[in-house]
Amino acid sequence: MTEQYRPDGSLRHLLTLEGLDRAEIERLLERAQGYVRAPGAPNPRSTTLAGITVANLFTEPSTRTRVSFELAAKRLGAEVVNLEVQLSSRAKGESMLDTAYTLEALHVDIFVIRDAEVGVPGLIAAHVAPHVSVVSGGEAHVSHPTQGLLDALTIRQRKGDFRRLAVAIVGDVRHSRVARSAWQVLRTLGTAELRIIAPPLLMPERGEFAGCTRFERLEEGLRDADVVMMLRIQRERMALDASLEPARYFAEYGLTAPRLALAHPAAIVLHPQPMNRGVEIASEVADGPQSAIRDQVRNGVAVRMAVLHALVAGRGPDR
Amino acid sequence: MTEQYRPDGSLRHLLTLEGLDRAEIERLLERAQGYVRAPGAPNPRSTTLAGITVANLFTEPSTRTRVSFELAAKRLGAEVVNLEVQLSSRAKGESMLDTAYTLEALHVDIFVIRDAEVGVPGLIAAHVAPHVSVVSGGEAHVSHPTQGLLDALTIRQRKGDFRRLAVAIVGDVRHSRVARSAWQVLRTLGTAELRIIAPPLLMPERGEFAGCTRFERLEEGLRDADVVMMLRIQRERMALDASLEPARYFAEYGLTAPRLALAHPAAIVLHPQPMNRGVEIASEVADGPQSAIRDQVRNGVAVRMAVLHALVAGRGPDR
Amino acid sequence: MTEQYRPDGSLRHLLTLEGLDRAEIERLLERAQGYVRAPGAPNPRSTTLAGITVANLFTEPSTRTRVSFELAAKRLGAEVVNLEVQLSSRAKGESMLDTAYTLEALHVDIFVIRDAEVGVPGLIAAHVAPHVSVVSGGEAHVSHPTQGLLDALTIRQRKGDFRRLAVAIVGDVRHSRVARSAWQVLRTLGTAELRIIAPPLLMPERGEFAGCTRFERLEEGLRDADVVMMLRIQRERMALDASLEPARYFAEYGLTAPRLALAHPAAIVLHPQPMNRGVEIASEVADGPQSAIRDQVRNGVAVRMAVLHALVAGRGPDR
Repeated sequence: MTEQYRPDGSLRHLLTLEGLDRAEIERLLERAQGYVRAPGAPNPRSTTLAGITVANLFTEPSTRTRVSFELAAKRLGAEVVNLEVQLSSRAKGESMLDTAYTLEALHVDIFVIRDAEVGVPGLIAAHVAPHVSVVSGGEAHVSHPTQGLLDALTIRQRKGDFRRLAVAIVGDVRHSRVARSAWQVLRTLGTAELRIIAPPLLMPERGEFAGCTRFERLEEGLRDADVVMMLRIQRERMALDASLEPARYFAEYGLTAPRLALAHPAAIVLHPQPMNRGVEIASEVADGPQSAIRDQVRNGVAVRMAVLHALVAGRGPDR
Repeated sequence: MTEQYRPDGSLRHLLTLEGLDRAEIERLLERAQGYVRAPGAPNPRSTTLAGITVANLFTEPSTRTRVSFELAAKRLGAEVVNLEVQLSSRAKGESMLDTAYTLEALHVDIFVIRDAEVGVPGLIAAHVAPHVSVVSGGEAHVSHPTQGLLDALTIRQRKGDFRRLAVAIVGDVRHSRVARSAWQVLRTLGTAELRIIAPPLLMPERGEFAGCTRFERLEEGLRDADVVMMLRIQRERMALDASLEPARYFAEYGLTAPRLALAHPAAIVLHPQPMNRGVEIASEVADGPQSAIRDQVRNGVAVRMAVLHALVAGRGPDR
Repeated sequence: MTEQYRPDGSLRHLLTLEGLDRAEIERLLERAQGYVRAPGAPNPRSTTLAGITVANLFTEPSTRTRVSFELAAKRLGAEVVNLEVQLSSRAKGESMLDTAYTLEALHVDIFVIRDAEVGVPGLIAAHVAPHVSVVSGGEAHVSHPTQGLLDALTIRQRKGDFRRLAVAIVGDVRHSRVARSAWQVLRTLGTAELRIIAPPLLMPERGEFAGCTRFERLEEGLRDADVVMMLRIQRERMALDASLEPARYFAEYGLTAPRLALAHPAAIVLHPQPMNRGVEIASEVADGPQSAIRDQVRNGVAVRMAVLHALVAGRGPDR
């Protein structure tokens, strides 16, 4: 695994939340909280990243995550360039690195990389010059660290102390980078009880998600949960088996108001978006009073600002 | 119809020119005039929109209108993000709104929306938070308000008092958002005489374009006109009927120099671009001394700056 | 050919290096050298291009060259818009010019144009208003002036006086804009010996590359060369003839370590990228100690900053 820290102990890359200790995560959440703004509040101009260039390397032309990173970087005063590059194995490993070296030579300081294949952000992080940082914007099914942080920030804002909380992660856990990053950060923060709820086909391998209680029935797993984290189910998955067909999936695993009533009365609902309304979540819940979904988006910019700040701050006083 | 004004009477959205009173339009034109620069004159740096984020949501990757809005926003100091999103009914209404809520949560203050379907800008405007504004960058065949304003500004610069002018709108009036917005603004500004000239197939329904005189023969309608506003005819339309086939359309409705000579000797020619030269307009006219087409483009940036300014100024002193 | 100079002798367009005299080129290289930064060094904020708008018109969505120009312009304080426009003859000449006139009317000051067809940058340069400049970002097989300048800058940094150097250009010289621009700049700078090395099918016509010695055998042409400039061979080309099939091409024309050993021991290797590793160049050479390929990329931004500066500086004190 690519080392994420500099020799002096400062954070250089953010590829996964695995290996980040509690103090590090709390510092990031603390700083992110400072960047949270009320809706409509003016955006204070910052020069924290003045002179820094951030390149967004995304395989899709425009995504919420790309815009979230772009705005986070711009609001800290960075220059941002967006590229659509194919970094995956369709290009050979060496051409992928050539692209990275080229951007490095163009004085790009931070790469934000989203890729459908395992290992791309790490491979690039392992090869770029010491002053360059890599942030994962979502890597295959394995990692989505800024999503994990924004989930943690949202829970912290709404529910406070993790050591008293039961969090249920619901849906396609098996294929979800969101679930994996959430599990890592919530475990590190000392969450009292972690549950995963999934149909057998979407349940992760036994060796994964250590410490989580597993449920196949939604009603059982939701009982008294403080946080219900819903996952998106991909269209491709629904075609795999009759049990995953939208209407049937909704009947068994869709989060409806009556089901949510089984959780703690003050439970909050999360979803990484985009939502399949009427498949994994009912609109009455998505738009209901217990939904914290829009807070997640707002917190996403703040978390990404905090991460960009941390990576650059660790470069030392000379920048 | 979505309310465009805030309770205090300030302009919040600009979806259509319908309902804007003469004073409002004149204020916008006045401010736009102040933003007009001579070619090559340096761009004064402005911080009018500092701290404001503008998102351009266009369904096509790059259009003149998108660049015009992008430059207008940047020249006032705003942050701009460009997104290609499918907002239309191909996505269900709720996912369209989810995209809007996401951008709102990312602290986007102004949405510029171009969409081929009726109702998308209005639907979003009706649902976003009170501090968020929506500007239409062109909505189906119904509305293109900044185009209407730039047409009015161009006419005002060249011809002065609208109460003395005869304006002829020529071509595919039936399907034209440009014609509808022009008709609205010119009527409000008290234009003496409004004419529409179109072949029977492209003539709007009787109930529309109240107060306009209708002509099926170009020569008749052009007589003594002070302003000749040509419209683009779409390729799809030309395929509908033999009478709309390019050569035949040009023979009957193309604006040539001899035909332009039927208008007032000081008449000006407008076109929203892109032009089908040799179909609706001859190059000798498009590039001739009476053409104000490039002025329209220049005025487009100024008008969009004025609109963005107005929407933000109305948010009050706290921003 | 389009005139590149203003009446007062200052550089207005950069479409080709042909016709630029040695003093002009040295001034550009000198200024570019001043813009070169060490890897990781902070980017000093500049306002040299404040108030200036640069439009990147590229036919592909994102390329290294586009990003290089974009960063060069932004680092000098310019506003940058990226457009994907089809400027080629697929659109008729007049619509191409309409696009240019539109951008000019939007107060774009500098167009950076990359196009696969001959003549597009020149045609636009010939028609835009006097205060507007055009820079070629690569024109068909004929010209890539900023690449030529960055090649020259890289050679100058590493090898010093051109009058003592033997430079070998290797590969698909026939179809290469990189080779043509390199040949022009190196000849003007007084390079002692210029060689081209190519298989018969990729050798340029006799009338071209005046003053170059021609070699069909790589080993012969490399002997004692100080600079080995490798060219990319296009996939389409490899399909044309069995002799250009990748493995066979590599066997005959690929730059390997043993072959590079035939050149001067202190020889440097250049490549415009992207590289076909294992086709025109071996990885051991591309990543070896004699490779100056990453320097070329870094120098590319500096050269583009110098060019943008020169074009704007010549507009006089009023800007």
